[in-house]
Amino acid sequence: MFAIAATLLILNVDAQVAGGAGDLGDRLTHIWPSYLAYALSFVTIGIMWVNHHTVMAQINRTDRRFLFANIGLLLCIAFVPFPTRLVAEHIRGDGAQDAALAYGFTMVATAIFFNLTWFYASMRGRLLQPDADPAVVSGLTRAYLPGPWIYLAATLVAFASPEASVVLFLLIAVIYVVESSLFGS
Amino acid sequence: MFAIAATLLILNVDAQVAGGAGDLGDRLTHIWPSYLAYALSFVTIGIMWVNHHTVMAQINRTDRRFLFANIGLLLCIAFVPFPTRLVAEHIRGDGAQDAALAYGFTMVATAIFFNLTWFYASMRGRLLQPDADPAVVSGLTRAYLPGPWIYLAATLVAFASPEASVVLFLLIAVIYVVESSLFGS
Amino acid sequence: MFAIAATLLILNVDAQVAGGAGDLGDRLTHIWPSYLAYALSFVTIGIMWVNHHTVMAQINRTDRRFLFANIGLLLCIAFVPFPTRLVAEHIRGDGAQDAALAYGFTMVATAIFFNLTWFYASMRGRLLQPDADPAVVSGLTRAYLPGPWIYLAATLVAFASPEASVVLFLLIAVIYVVESSLFGS
Amino acid sequence: MFAIAATLLILNVDAQVAGGAGDLGDRLTHIWPSYLAYALSFVTIGIMWVNHHTVMAQINRTDRRFLFANIGLLLCIAFVPFPTRLVAEHIRGDGAQDAALAYGFTMVATAIFFNLTWFYASMRGRLLQPDADPAVVSGLTRAYLPGPWIYLAATLVAFASPEASVVLFLLIAVIYVVESSLFGS
Repeated sequence: MFAIAATLLILNVDAQVAGGAGDLGDRLTHIWPSYLAYALSFVTIGIMWVNHHTVMAQINRTDRRFLFANIGLLLCIAFVPFPTRLVAEHIRGDGAQDAALAYGFTMVATAIFFNLTWFYASMRGRLLQPDADPAVVSGLTRAYLPGPWIYLAATLVAFASPEASVVLFLLIAVIYVVESSLFGS
Repeated sequence: MFAIAATLLILNVDAQVAGGAGDLGDRLTHIWPSYLAYALSFVTIGIMWVNHHTVMAQINRTDRRFLFANIGLLLCIAFVPFPTRLVAEHIRGDGAQDAALAYGFTMVATAIFFNLTWFYASMRGRLLQPDADPAVVSGLTRAYLPGPWIYLAATLVAFASPEASVVLFLLIAVIYVVESSLFGS
Repeated sequence: MFAIAATLLILNVDAQVAGGAGDLGDRLTHIWPSYLAYALSFVTIGIMWVNHHTVMAQINRTDRRFLFANIGLLLCIAFVPFPTRLVAEHIRGDGAQDAALAYGFTMVATAIFFNLTWFYASMRGRLLQPDADPAVVSGLTRAYLPGPWIYLAATLVAFASPEASVVLFLLIAVIYVVESSLFGS
Repeated sequence: MFAIAATLLILNVDAQVAGGAGDLGDRLTHIWPSYLAYALSFVTIGIMWVNHHTVMAQINRTDRRFLFANIGLLLCIAFVPFPTRLVAEHIRGDGAQDAALAYGFTMVATAIFFNLTWFYASMRGRLLQPDADPAVVSGLTRAYLPGPWIYLAATLVAFASPEASVVLFLLIAVIYVVESSLFGS
């Protein structure tokens, strides 16, 4: 699912260059926000995949409620290519604010569903491995809790400056990758 | 397969906003039926995936006939993005009835194939695990049998009111998720 | 891979209805060749999936040459959605013959690659399980050998009548499913 | 992921024929660069899949840094359908040079990420199987190191002749398949 959503992102870049005018080199240069948006969303979905993997490694069994929470999470992730395209197409025009807000609220919703699935699984050890390491479990809880707030803050910045908001989305992904690479295992 | 069909649903939302006119915020608001249709179909395909999983957990071995019945079932599920798009685009216009009927009959056909695969596998325990719990098996039979009739009823409502029909499709999915979450395991 | 190629087929139906004119009910009825082509290709890809599964169950190990033969086979299968769309769009117009030929030669090429992978794997038992049943192995050989010739014959019929050719493609799939269901295991 | 990127390539061929004018047979003949580009990219992605498989077979465990390097690699591979389409559409027109450069630099970036993931995993045996065969490990290192340079050379040829550059991309894939089939195992 993560792989499919990430791979579909390239269709957005396709659509951008097909709609352009002028010689090919100019068009390829002109759509640089599409490349950035592609990379941002690809890496963001990649981070979600790594995190989902980490959650699943702590889990022992599933139940119906957990499966439905997961469907909600996947619904958000599969939605990501849509606001990504909005940002790529509109960040330099009138729709910049609407596009940044659409992207941001999708991220907020995704982060909320990440917390929902994790809390449902981990509260009172409901679905965890019997030998789950309490340090890892509380580490995951600490890592996921601020997610929705961080994305909400970056999203609200779009009311002042959509460009600054998108730069913040980029920074969140970059900092996450750098920080995990230095301190994660 | 379920994951791919569900992920393709976002392409419908893409197509809707690309074809619109006016400023981006208005367009994003105007296509709200697309979001609803995306969520409805995503959750419906998610429910099918959970159910298919439940069936497969009871099954011990497969044969050619079972595989072909499964291909028929998957053919219906992979078809879902098409009537979903019809509903999203036409529910507010002249084609509302045709769109609701197309969606409904796709669901009826899917529910029929669910029953076919399950009855073929479970009748006289043909493909079941030797230790399959008879209570689970008869529970699944009771759960799947009314499916085609429920969807047929909701589909026929479209002749009176396509909007009511779509609301019923939504209710079926919501009630299923809530009921499974409360009583399922 | 089989699942992805099969699921992409629905995009062809999407494209057909989007391009039409008139009221939605008429358009949905008018594109009936698209539904038939969708079902034909879905079932054909499904049959290939079942056969690929059967081959893989006989195989013990792989080598580079076998993997590259498989890439060739998958290249053909992933190509199927393209001629399927040609047939759906053009079978009632001037391009009927070209569309049927494109579909047919894709099937011939796929059947040839099926034979190549199987012969490479099975000749002198090269990659087979040590305990592979000789009856199953020679049964697979007998089943695959006529494939390219049957499809070639159905394809050449397109020079006389493209419609008859497409009916033959449908018959090949239907007969295969019925015959496997009655005599396969 | 490899399978999805490869399967999406057929959408490019679809788009090419839909945009053409004239009778279907002429259009199908006229877009021959699309078929060649489809086959080239499909086989190239197939080769990457085989290589990724070979790397993974040597690896014992993963860490966060390795996962992120893999996300970078997959980002490049999922990007391939885009420059493939550029080459197919523009190799006979004004944009030939830009298209060949886009394709080539995508390949250079992919080859660099292949080296990054492999060196991170293999240096001082960091993530390797304890019983990894040193001959296989150094063989992989020798095989991957020249990759970026070979693709860079073929890419730079596009400044003199885009067509020659594309022929070189084809030759690289063909030689790789033939050489692996003869000497690989």
